[in-house]
Amino acid sequence: MTGPINEFEKRLMESAEATETLLASLLSGTCLPGEISRPATLLAAMRHGTLNGGKRLRPFLVLESAAMLGGDPQAAARIGAALECVHCYSLIHDDLPAMDDDDMRRGQPTVHRAFDEASAILAGDSLLTYAFDIIAAPETMLPDRQKTELVLALARASGLGGMAGGQALDLAAEKAAPDEAGIVTLQAMKTGALLRFACEAGAIAAGRGPEDRQRLRDFGEKIGLAFQLADDLLDITADAATMGKATGKDAARGKGTLVALYGAAWAEERLAVLAQEASDLISGYGDKAVILQAAAHFIADRKS
Amino acid sequence: MTGPINEFEKRLMESAEATETLLASLLSGTCLPGEISRPATLLAAMRHGTLNGGKRLRPFLVLESAAMLGGDPQAAARIGAALECVHCYSLIHDDLPAMDDDDMRRGQPTVHRAFDEASAILAGDSLLTYAFDIIAAPETMLPDRQKTELVLALARASGLGGMAGGQALDLAAEKAAPDEAGIVTLQAMKTGALLRFACEAGAIAAGRGPEDRQRLRDFGEKIGLAFQLADDLLDITADAATMGKATGKDAARGKGTLVALYGAAWAEERLAVLAQEASDLISGYGDKAVILQAAAHFIADRKS
Repeated sequence: MTGPINEFEKRLMESAEATETLLASLLSGTCLPGEISRPATLLAAMRHGTLNGGKRLRPFLVLESAAMLGGDPQAAARIGAALECVHCYSLIHDDLPAMDDDDMRRGQPTVHRAFDEASAILAGDSLLTYAFDIIAAPETMLPDRQKTELVLALARASGLGGMAGGQALDLAAEKAAPDEAGIVTLQAMKTGALLRFACEAGAIAAGRGPEDRQRLRDFGEKIGLAFQLADDLLDITADAATMGKATGKDAARGKGTLVALYGAAWAEERLAVLAQEASDLISGYGDKAVILQAAAHFIADRKS
Repeated sequence: MTGPINEFEKRLMESAEATETLLASLLSGTCLPGEISRPATLLAAMRHGTLNGGKRLRPFLVLESAAMLGGDPQAAARIGAALECVHCYSLIHDDLPAMDDDDMRRGQPTVHRAFDEASAILAGDSLLTYAFDIIAAPETMLPDRQKTELVLALARASGLGGMAGGQALDLAAEKAAPDEAGIVTLQAMKTGALLRFACEAGAIAAGRGPEDRQRLRDFGEKIGLAFQLADDLLDITADAATMGKATGKDAARGKGTLVALYGAAWAEERLAVLAQEASDLISGYGDKAVILQAAAHFIADRKS
C-alpha cells in the first residue's frame, strides 16, 4: 500500500526518532550559559520521564503544520521538543500518588516509582521550565516576535486556563460527575489545549498571520476532540498490554465521558465526522495538507 | 531618622503593596484570550499561595534595579509579579509532604494543608506557567527582544540548572552532607539564582547592554549570598513566631550550612563584608544607587 497514509506513518516514525534524539541532546549533562550545575539525579529523573519512546504526536503536529506553511524545520523541531517537555511534565505530575496514582507509563515504572516523589515533582517542574528555555534560547532561530507569541500561546495552553486547569477539573470530576458541558470543557483543557497549540505553533513558526493561525487552531481543536474520544473509547475496549498503562480506570472511578453518555457506536460515528471536518478545514492548502489530513484520520482511528 | 534606610523602608512597603495589588488582579477569575476557563478551586489555591503579604523582596529588587537604570516602572512591576509567581510556586512545592513537609508558611496553613496535595501541586505548576505568560503578554510593554531575554534568564534561574536543581541538591543533602563547595553551589542555585535574576531583570527591562547586566548580576549574587547566610543565622537564633514558619529545622535535619561550619560570629562579619561589596559594585551609578545599596544592608542585617 502506498499513498498519504503510508507516507504519514513513515514521517510519524521519522519525526519520533528525531524528537527523541533532540530531547536526549537537550537533556544532556552539559550546562547552558546561566545554569550553575545540572544535578545528576534530577536530570536522570527528567530523562526517565521524557526519553521513553512515545509516538511524539505533538512534536509531529508542530513539524507538519510548520512544513505545510513553509516554516523552518529546525525551529519547528525545537518548538516540538519544548511542547513534548510540557506534555511529559504533565504525565509525571498526573501519575503522582496525590493525583492519578499510576505505577506504570508506556510499559515502564512512572518517575515517582523509579525515583521518589520529590524527584518526580522537581523533574516535572524542571521540564515545564525548560520548555520556555528551549523556545527562547538563541538556538531557536526565529524572530523575537514569534518567540514571544509562542511563549504566550504555550503558557495559555498549559496553565490555569488550559491543561493544568483541566487536570484540576478532572480530579474534581471524581467527586462530582460533570454534565456534558462540563466534560467537554474539561477535555478541551486537559487534552485539547496542547494539541491545539501544536498546530497553531506550526503557523506561528512559519510566520503566518491571524487567519492561518486561527485555521490551524480550529484544526487542532477538531483533532483534540477526536484524540480524547478515541482515548475514552480505548479505555473501555483495549487491554493494558496494548496501552502500556492501566485501562478501565476511568469507568472504575465513575468518571464521566461522552462514550459513557452516548455509547461506543455513537463515538465511532462521531470520530469519523471529526476526522472529516478537520481534514476539510485545511483542504485549501492543497497537496501540502495531505500528511496532516492523514494525521487527523490516524488520530480518530487509533487502536493504542 | 531620615536618609536612605528610611526611604528604603518606605519604598519596600509601597512596592510590597503594589505587588500584592497587581498579583490579586492577575489572579482574578477573568479569563485571558486563549484560556478556556479558570477553575475556581485551583485559582483559590494559587491565590492562597501567593496573596499572603510577604515582603516581596524579589519584585522590589526588579523595580529598584529598573528604576536605577531608567526602565519603565510598569513593565518592571509585571516582571516582578512574574518572578514572585515563580518564588511562590517554589514555596508551595517545597512545603509538600514529599519535600520539606511544612504545615505553616507566613503564619498561615500551607497550600496542601488548606486545600489538598493535588491542588498544591497544580497550583504550583500553574503559577510557574503563569510567570512566563505575564512576561510575554502584550500588557508587558517591552520590545520582544527584551521579553525573550527575560524568559530565557528566568527559565535558566528557575529550572534544572537553578532553583529547582538547588532544591534537588537540598533534599539530597539530608542524606549525605555536602562539603563547603557543595553547600555554596546548593545555595547559589536554590536561593541565589532568583535574587540574581531579580537584579539582572531590572537591567534587561531598562534595555541595558551586557556590562550593566553583568554588574547587576554580580550585585544580585552578593545579596543572594547575604540573604542565605542571614537565613541560616536566623534558623539558629530566631523563634518560630518571628519567622512565621518552623525554625531550627535545618540543624535538626543535620543540613550543612556555612553558619554550622564557621559559627555565628564569622557569619555576622561575612554578612557585613558582602553588604559592602554589593554596595561598592553599584556605587558608579551615584545617587541613583542609594536604595539598592540600602537594600543590600537590609538583607544582611535582617532579623526575620
